[in-house]
Amino acid sequence: MTEAINTHRDEADATIADEAAAAVIERVRFDADGLVPAIVQQYDSREVLMLGYMNAESLRRTLTEGRVTYWSRSRAELWRKGDTSGHTQHLRAAELDCDGDTLLLQVEQHGPACHTGLRRCFDVDPFLPLTVTAASPGTIRAAREPDTENGEAP
Amino acid sequence: MTEAINTHRDEADATIADEAAAAVIERVRFDADGLVPAIVQQYDSREVLMLGYMNAESLRRTLTEGRVTYWSRSRAELWRKGDTSGHTQHLRAAELDCDGDTLLLQVEQHGPACHTGLRRCFDVDPFLPLTVTAASPGTIRAAREPDTENGEAP
Repeated sequence: MTEAINTHRDEADATIADEAAAAVIERVRFDADGLVPAIVQQYDSREVLMLGYMNAESLRRTLTEGRVTYWSRSRAELWRKGDTSGHTQHLRAAELDCDGDTLLLQVEQHGPACHTGLRRCFDVDPFLPLTVTAASPGTIRAAREPDTENGEAP
Repeated sequence: MTEAINTHRDEADATIADEAAAAVIERVRFDADGLVPAIVQQYDSREVLMLGYMNAESLRRTLTEGRVTYWSRSRAELWRKGDTSGHTQHLRAAELDCDGDTLLLQVEQHGPACHTGLRRCFDVDPFLPLTVTAASPGTIRAAREPDTENGEAP
């Protein structure tokens, strides 16, 4: 009896999820390639982990399964994050932006988000970040060790 | 004398900034349209404010002036954020992702970031966010008032 109620509930949930996903997909402005960029943020720390791309089917799966699924532009196939690496992304919340052409996903990331093994895809560049100098907000300087040979005044 | 030293310093800073910007631009993988997406995050609260697009010139100006400048795809022109609205974005830091095709900018946003007058471009969708149910992480439900006519089990 409990099982029958739960089955009924699961089916009703699935219907709601399918309808909700379809309503979202209807509102997305996909680009000429049928893709939309998705910004991925760790829900609690608010770190930006990566940017991925979704087509309608990957977005539908993401919203209804709760596992984040992208369209791999390089491999031209659906790519459910973590199926190979084990580093899964679980959806906590999703928002569409003001003109419907960007998604923001709040996720729970298990393990590194980046294929390089780093937590974030933005951790890898040794040159950036550039930082604005406090004294002169119109200029920037590289975040690196002082270089006495660069002609900079002491 | 102090003025002369400051002028020398400003010129040296400008040279460093130009070289740093050129080195960054060299590493960016712009798309077929010559653009790169830039995720924009408020540096202290870590809110994701918007996604914009940059070409090489808008990125150069952003990095060297410290005022965030985009390429407007709809108007096909450079667009320095806040020149019309007064809602400027000042660059605090920037990072390139692992494959060089996405930027993450940390900014200090003055006033609303969205043209709708809202703080973020992601606040505007009345349907989303969708939230994962705690009991059943594989399904989602819409973040809305309970609907007694939707066939859901009580």
